[in-house]
Amino acid sequence: MSKHVVILGGGIGGIATAYNLRRMDSSLKITIVSGRPYFGFTPAYPHLALGWRKFEDITIPLANLLPKFNIDYVPENGESIDPDNNKIRTTSGKEIEYDYLVIATGPKLVFGAEGQEQYSTSVCTAEHALELQKKLEEFYADPGPVVVGAIPGVSCFGPAYEFAFMLHHELKKRGLRHRVRITYITSEPYVGHLGLGGVGPSRRLMEDLFAERSINWIANVKITKVEPDKVIYEDLEGKQYEVPCKLSMLMPRFMGPEVVASAGDKVANPANKMVIVNRCFQNPTYKNIYGVGVVTAIPPVEQTPIPTGAPKTGMMIEQMALAVAKNIVNDIKNSADRYAPELSAVCIADMGGDAAGFFAHPVLPPRATVKHKKAVWMHWFKSAFEKYFLWKVKSGNISPFFEEKALELLLGVHGVRLCKDCSGSPGTC
Amino acid sequence: MSKHVVILGGGIGGIATAYNLRRMDSSLKITIVSGRPYFGFTPAYPHLALGWRKFEDITIPLANLLPKFNIDYVPENGESIDPDNNKIRTTSGKEIEYDYLVIATGPKLVFGAEGQEQYSTSVCTAEHALELQKKLEEFYADPGPVVVGAIPGVSCFGPAYEFAFMLHHELKKRGLRHRVRITYITSEPYVGHLGLGGVGPSRRLMEDLFAERSINWIANVKITKVEPDKVIYEDLEGKQYEVPCKLSMLMPRFMGPEVVASAGDKVANPANKMVIVNRCFQNPTYKNIYGVGVVTAIPPVEQTPIPTGAPKTGMMIEQMALAVAKNIVNDIKNSADRYAPELSAVCIADMGGDAAGFFAHPVLPPRATVKHKKAVWMHWFKSAFEKYFLWKVKSGNISPFFEEKALELLLGVHGVRLCKDCSGSPGTC
Amino acid sequence: MSKHVVILGGGIGGIATAYNLRRMDSSLKITIVSGRPYFGFTPAYPHLALGWRKFEDITIPLANLLPKFNIDYVPENGESIDPDNNKIRTTSGKEIEYDYLVIATGPKLVFGAEGQEQYSTSVCTAEHALELQKKLEEFYADPGPVVVGAIPGVSCFGPAYEFAFMLHHELKKRGLRHRVRITYITSEPYVGHLGLGGVGPSRRLMEDLFAERSINWIANVKITKVEPDKVIYEDLEGKQYEVPCKLSMLMPRFMGPEVVASAGDKVANPANKMVIVNRCFQNPTYKNIYGVGVVTAIPPVEQTPIPTGAPKTGMMIEQMALAVAKNIVNDIKNSADRYAPELSAVCIADMGGDAAGFFAHPVLPPRATVKHKKAVWMHWFKSAFEKYFLWKVKSGNISPFFEEKALELLLGVHGVRLCKDCSGSPGTC
Repeated sequence: MSKHVVILGGGIGGIATAYNLRRMDSSLKITIVSGRPYFGFTPAYPHLALGWRKFEDITIPLANLLPKFNIDYVPENGESIDPDNNKIRTTSGKEIEYDYLVIATGPKLVFGAEGQEQYSTSVCTAEHALELQKKLEEFYADPGPVVVGAIPGVSCFGPAYEFAFMLHHELKKRGLRHRVRITYITSEPYVGHLGLGGVGPSRRLMEDLFAERSINWIANVKITKVEPDKVIYEDLEGKQYEVPCKLSMLMPRFMGPEVVASAGDKVANPANKMVIVNRCFQNPTYKNIYGVGVVTAIPPVEQTPIPTGAPKTGMMIEQMALAVAKNIVNDIKNSADRYAPELSAVCIADMGGDAAGFFAHPVLPPRATVKHKKAVWMHWFKSAFEKYFLWKVKSGNISPFFEEKALELLLGVHGVRLCKDCSGSPGTC
Repeated sequence: MSKHVVILGGGIGGIATAYNLRRMDSSLKITIVSGRPYFGFTPAYPHLALGWRKFEDITIPLANLLPKFNIDYVPENGESIDPDNNKIRTTSGKEIEYDYLVIATGPKLVFGAEGQEQYSTSVCTAEHALELQKKLEEFYADPGPVVVGAIPGVSCFGPAYEFAFMLHHELKKRGLRHRVRITYITSEPYVGHLGLGGVGPSRRLMEDLFAERSINWIANVKITKVEPDKVIYEDLEGKQYEVPCKLSMLMPRFMGPEVVASAGDKVANPANKMVIVNRCFQNPTYKNIYGVGVVTAIPPVEQTPIPTGAPKTGMMIEQMALAVAKNIVNDIKNSADRYAPELSAVCIADMGGDAAGFFAHPVLPPRATVKHKKAVWMHWFKSAFEKYFLWKVKSGNISPFFEEKALELLLGVHGVRLCKDCSGSPGTC
Repeated sequence: MSKHVVILGGGIGGIATAYNLRRMDSSLKITIVSGRPYFGFTPAYPHLALGWRKFEDITIPLANLLPKFNIDYVPENGESIDPDNNKIRTTSGKEIEYDYLVIATGPKLVFGAEGQEQYSTSVCTAEHALELQKKLEEFYADPGPVVVGAIPGVSCFGPAYEFAFMLHHELKKRGLRHRVRITYITSEPYVGHLGLGGVGPSRRLMEDLFAERSINWIANVKITKVEPDKVIYEDLEGKQYEVPCKLSMLMPRFMGPEVVASAGDKVANPANKMVIVNRCFQNPTYKNIYGVGVVTAIPPVEQTPIPTGAPKTGMMIEQMALAVAKNIVNDIKNSADRYAPELSAVCIADMGGDAAGFFAHPVLPPRATVKHKKAVWMHWFKSAFEKYFLWKVKSGNISPFFEEKALELLLGVHGVRLCKDCSGSPGTC
């Protein structure tokens, strides 16, 4: 009888895993469990917030999409996992048995600063971005100072930089820039750290990009509180400061959602409830459970004075999805070959007119290669990639042959690597 | 009967105001009161000091010039202002009644460090520049270390940078550079601050320009004393240091001259005796008194550990002169329209072979636009602008149509802006 | 009777002096005393260590070479100098009388950190480089972290930078870069100081070059101890840190060898046993003794928190050799003309694919000119220069006419300068 793979989550990680599995094994039974009824291209949420994209442009309803590829769709969230009995329960109480479980839920957002959820905004979900879009319309009518930043524990800094740059661009276009003081406040030890310990000369590059745009920055501090008209932060000595603002966009930190926690301490990392995985992105205890995407527990690149985490960018998630799909299919086929994702980060911060891109390979040092580039074409490349990726999702083409070849040629990177032994931290092999 | 506008000062501010008024109203009676018998192109005084310009090249005698445009000329300084009776008294005791008074005297120079006036030099007046020219001739015969810098409270740093760069260039040409240690000592919190809180990445740019020329720098300190063979400065903790030098050029700080103080505390800012103005550059108490140029009281861009002020560059002064002329003419015509200058700073530091330029718009943050450029053509542009400006003064063309258009096209700046309400600080609207 | 010039040392300094003398005076008796049987092109020793050059490619046996130019060769080291009786004794006890003595032995290497000689490696001699080559072969089979750096008192930092860059390049080529953390640890106050107080914006350039290659750096510290698996260093407060490493390459500091010390305190600087010279590179006490190259005592460019010295690069040594040869020949001819070398430093750090070059003229500030350049052609230029120099040595052409012309045209530098008075520090005139 054909095996059943259940995938929690219908985002980049879940979809990419499902498509890879389908491509490798047409008879496999695949089920995606996702309470969110659409696939969303998360890197475009800042664009959604600024009204540069419409919701329909960057999302695809799952109910229409998945049946085309013979993937079952359960339009509910997972509520609990019973790893000892190989089944999950959904929010409506439905039980689903699995042979393999892939956890790709994405993160639970933690608005760790007092008042952050109430008085600040985010671009981490389409809903937040749409809410911010509305607030921005009011803001343009009566502008004032803006704070953009990241609270302690954040692992995903790119959208904060991107939002600061893009807001600058939008305000210029509207002739309002001279009425808005923009301040970037971050838990990174320095601007350009990006949770990555820097990527080549990213500190200098980011400082210059901010300076050229008259964006002020304050690094190595903890945002502790948001009030309707100010953001309050502390330095390392605990001294408090406040920055007035009419609008703020602060990145939350990420942890694993309750459904992961329900699986117990052998699946959920006690510290952050993310999925414990080995270098093949398989749970070391329950060998038929895998993790893909932001919900997996990856160690930080380096200790920072104020805690920060390593980002999991789109390329890393695609690499995880490919490795996990290969590992499941090989397990079914009784092949001993196991794959580990290379975990290379590509990060392109759109700035409206142009864009700044970084490439770090591998993400966890020592690094073989770092690259950086600021160029107008990067802005167009990012837009083109968005269209290409949405095309891939609509047409079911994840990791097509020519993409792997391009990565190899351009960046010298392979998506995944054959690994003798899966035990060991993610990112090594 | 035609109204009488009296203008104190025959520099860029006074001349530009007079020409604008004449262009807008050919019947107006205009009188310029200036003890200095010539118009001087102040940005070229460093060039005068280095012998790269002759005095005749960059000055125009007022006595020949003004009558051509039907502007009366009183070759004396103002001694006192009686704002309640609408008249001024000159140094010879002559009384002149006015309908409108424009104060455009330029600053009184304050050599605040002990021994500065005696043992150091400046490029703030043509006389100082000529004196420095002589000292330099002796210096070349027997060179030694040089200090260039700015004492606490300075608002005009550009000429100090320019002099350091140009002296480097001149010493190279003379084959003497290896015998002269050049040190730049400043009250700015960092090199490239410029009294402007920096202009984009001006810190990095200036540090590189100094490093490439082997010019050492010491920032965030107070020069307290000049002796014949050394400059003495203090750090923030009050610790004293000395730098040996054979020659020094130190920018003085600026305050309003006695004639402004004589008008009382409602005209002269008690702190620095500069003219109190609203955003339309009109005195809020005596509505028929206006200020133009360096003598007006503008708040600093930001508080610095050691006090510094905001520069008032040529472009800002031209914008003030245009706004004030429009406001006077509209007042005469009983039009309620009032204009505020945009206050955009263009600052080009000549370096001999090439030049570094900065553009900040508006000067007071938040800023819509900052630009910077280092190029050989900037050097020639600055020279060309000097010739163009002197042509403008000789021919009476201030703010001609094509210049306004060029600014709009190139920099997106308007000279002045129609303002509903004149109350409020300069630089806002 | 023809005069006898004895030269201690057969490296760049000794050979260049001998060739210059022979060119100027074909009848002079010249003897080179050198226990090392070959001339080695020291700037290529890092290349030898990495296996990019063979020993035969960059060395020339002296025994075959010198007779061609009528230069006597004594294949032993000098053991002692008797300056009062104008003779030296070699290690075998042979006594050689001289009319003029040129000390060009090169330095004695001081491995000042505990365990440095035992557990670390160097590229200062061909033997060390060959030993390092062997260690690297083992290292590639099982790589780990690497430390590259310089202990307190080092004056020659270039090869350390070069080795770090070149090792990065080699590891990339071998696909091993992601398994090797490279850390640069130095006594320089900042990266890019180079013992030269920086050369223009060398700090920024070096920081960027390191950042682009993911090489970490720690500056302004003292390496105190090397253990088989770690390097231990202290900060200015004496706090200790350690960096794990599987391989280290640490520059030793230089002092004068025993043979110089044997000549007494009037020849050997008490502090470092290097040869005391005046600006003409003549000993002030014994006027027929000269010094050339690394063995001469030159003051540091500036005091640094942790001691560092000024490097003596190839170009400086060639300038010294030319000046000393001219001075000896003029002394023989009873001409009063004496020459001082200009002491301009050219330093090209090869990085495998490209190279970074610095030019400082003069080495001791104030400097007339500093230049810097990073380019692919610099890499090829350095290789071409190596071939050219080895051709010069083989063919006896030192300081040929067209080379002097090229320097004048390209860099505005003369090799030597006629000096009225030889008393005074090296590097002045």
